[in-house]
Amino acid sequence: MPEIATAPFTLARRTARMNPSVIRELLKVTERPGIISMAGGLPSADTFPVEAMREATARVLRDAPREALQYAASEGYGPLREWVAQYLAAHQGMSVSSSQVLITNGSQQGLDLVGKVLIDAGSRVLVETPTYLGAVQAFTPYEGALEGLASDGEGPRPDAFAGAARGARFAYVLPNFQNPRGHVYSEARRAALADIARGEGLPLVEDNPYGDLWYDTPPPRGLASRWPEGVLYLGSFSKVLAPGLRLGYAVAPPALYPKLLQAKQAADLHTAIFNQRIVHEVLKSGMLDDHIEAIRTRYRAHRDAMADALDRHMTGLATWQRPVGGMFFWLELAGGVDATALLPKAVEAGVAYVPGAPFYAEGPRADTLRLSFVTVSPETIDAGVAALARVIRESGMPRR
Amino acid sequence: MPEIATAPFTLARRTARMNPSVIRELLKVTERPGIISMAGGLPSADTFPVEAMREATARVLRDAPREALQYAASEGYGPLREWVAQYLAAHQGMSVSSSQVLITNGSQQGLDLVGKVLIDAGSRVLVETPTYLGAVQAFTPYEGALEGLASDGEGPRPDAFAGAARGARFAYVLPNFQNPRGHVYSEARRAALADIARGEGLPLVEDNPYGDLWYDTPPPRGLASRWPEGVLYLGSFSKVLAPGLRLGYAVAPPALYPKLLQAKQAADLHTAIFNQRIVHEVLKSGMLDDHIEAIRTRYRAHRDAMADALDRHMTGLATWQRPVGGMFFWLELAGGVDATALLPKAVEAGVAYVPGAPFYAEGPRADTLRLSFVTVSPETIDAGVAALARVIRESGMPRR
Repeated sequence: MPEIATAPFTLARRTARMNPSVIRELLKVTERPGIISMAGGLPSADTFPVEAMREATARVLRDAPREALQYAASEGYGPLREWVAQYLAAHQGMSVSSSQVLITNGSQQGLDLVGKVLIDAGSRVLVETPTYLGAVQAFTPYEGALEGLASDGEGPRPDAFAGAARGARFAYVLPNFQNPRGHVYSEARRAALADIARGEGLPLVEDNPYGDLWYDTPPPRGLASRWPEGVLYLGSFSKVLAPGLRLGYAVAPPALYPKLLQAKQAADLHTAIFNQRIVHEVLKSGMLDDHIEAIRTRYRAHRDAMADALDRHMTGLATWQRPVGGMFFWLELAGGVDATALLPKAVEAGVAYVPGAPFYAEGPRADTLRLSFVTVSPETIDAGVAALARVIRESGMPRR
Repeated sequence: MPEIATAPFTLARRTARMNPSVIRELLKVTERPGIISMAGGLPSADTFPVEAMREATARVLRDAPREALQYAASEGYGPLREWVAQYLAAHQGMSVSSSQVLITNGSQQGLDLVGKVLIDAGSRVLVETPTYLGAVQAFTPYEGALEGLASDGEGPRPDAFAGAARGARFAYVLPNFQNPRGHVYSEARRAALADIARGEGLPLVEDNPYGDLWYDTPPPRGLASRWPEGVLYLGSFSKVLAPGLRLGYAVAPPALYPKLLQAKQAADLHTAIFNQRIVHEVLKSGMLDDHIEAIRTRYRAHRDAMADALDRHMTGLATWQRPVGGMFFWLELAGGVDATALLPKAVEAGVAYVPGAPFYAEGPRADTLRLSFVTVSPETIDAGVAALARVIRESGMPRR
């Protein structure tokens, strides 16, 4: 009865579907000093280009302080939008005009704007199983009906995709190193999904925060390049520069762009132009390619350290795939151990992870968990995984 | 038929209510070099504390670069929230805990979150006549029914307020130097509105971006201090520091705060911590009081220049009140001249303003316009007002 609890305020119906972020609440617990946290999806702060930021900020405040501190266009900073269009052409095979680029407060805002513009109460929205928790949280308040697509190690299964397509508003897909599972869609799967989507007229929302973080071979090209008029693409600077700036972008087909822009205007007028100019200043030096290569080298070592640690300590207790990019290992626990129930014991033992259940739009699997390999040093990863294995072994948790 | 125009994307119903911002579209026209624009609500860039920003940014990137560039709490930066709570205690007579403060991307985002959390389809929402256009744009997508309250030079009329209160979700009020009318609610009116609201159980959303910009005497204390559990308060750093940082805040009664926070998490995870730490660094030096005093001195001269110019050139062509704060004069044109139809002629003559009609939730008055006195120098204001008077005089516009 929200009317009583919040009186005199009456809550909108949609708030009944809004819940505290399980992950963010967990993160607070795991920020306890001394704990080995493989929970958060936080990039390693060692990768932040602090010196480049320092120089860029000084230049912006010297050369264009009035413009950098004034109100600005809702679409975003022109040169940054142009940079994004060129980057996507070079790295994603996408042929887009800068006029299709909308700068957002991180790609999370892109998800919120997508929900606002595309989801009515009861609209069917297709997501992977499991899928990114933040997308579920962004879409849910718009009162759509989220449906989990049966998915395997290559992405949503084409039969499930084709079977659910008719009448759905859109499918939300993360082809590269998905959060939470870490898997990548194969070339064949991408081709099949794009064909089905086009054939059925099913729009796609392609979220690609991790695409640059490949450690072995680059992923196949994305879905937006295969069906430009049917795919809304979301990108982010959070994983390749720094999340604390809150800079992402949405790339929309021209027909859809105006409504997305109107939603952005109503949401917060525009993204901080100060941040946009600084990041453009950083980017225009051409540092990004080398910077991303350095991040890859670093994270590859982290990934390898966790793969080794899992082999060493977790064999028999869980199963996993070795991710070829991104930030996460996804574990399925043997014997149906409940990862949510186990978490307090793990924290007590000085180690933290994120239970997998909240990542499911439907039919949560309690015996799953996500480990981030980028936040903790390679040296510490082994100790963390060993401690976690001990907790699982000793838990005596009721198994399913 | 949005289904056809945006195929394969189907737009959500709510997008039919979303429209391009008339004001932002107009601003593009009026950015033509050489035009005297009294249209935009842009603070004078001369007031931006560039040197303080430079020092604060250098300090943040020296002392806490990893924290300033990493993900952060959705509530906002703790020390900034604490600063806001203390500032509101000192300047607004509000007794609030920092735990009630949510840092937003400008107060526009506060309006969007208010809509998301409090407005259902068909919910009655009371606004002033006229009211802030950005609030109308933020609330409209949530499909409520906005109702204009009969208002006079002291704010919404108590009889209208009392008559409409029952069953409304909330009333949105701008007691200090309202955008667009520039008027201030009298002490008696504030007391009356707070009493009625409390008596009827009608929550208030009090928006106060201009409260510090008083030029003659400080305004009476706000509504939040008169009924703390029934008022959601919105503040902004855009008018006293710089809008390009997109920093504002919402202060919610404790019972309402969690839902507002969940809406914020879903919308964009958090406001850029980089910006929050920089602004806190600027504020903790204690510079704000002197800085605001300097802004007041500057804007007072602007206000006086426009008052003189209007007396000189506009007498007989329009009526207006001399604002005692804020950024705007509100003109009612004599003889029912249509300000929207007149605008192209004005722009041709090298002068721009914002027509008043879009500021009305219901029953727009075409014979009104808003002039900002802060963007253009006092010297230029006279030429701008003279040019506008000439356009009105020579327009031969059909009068009502």
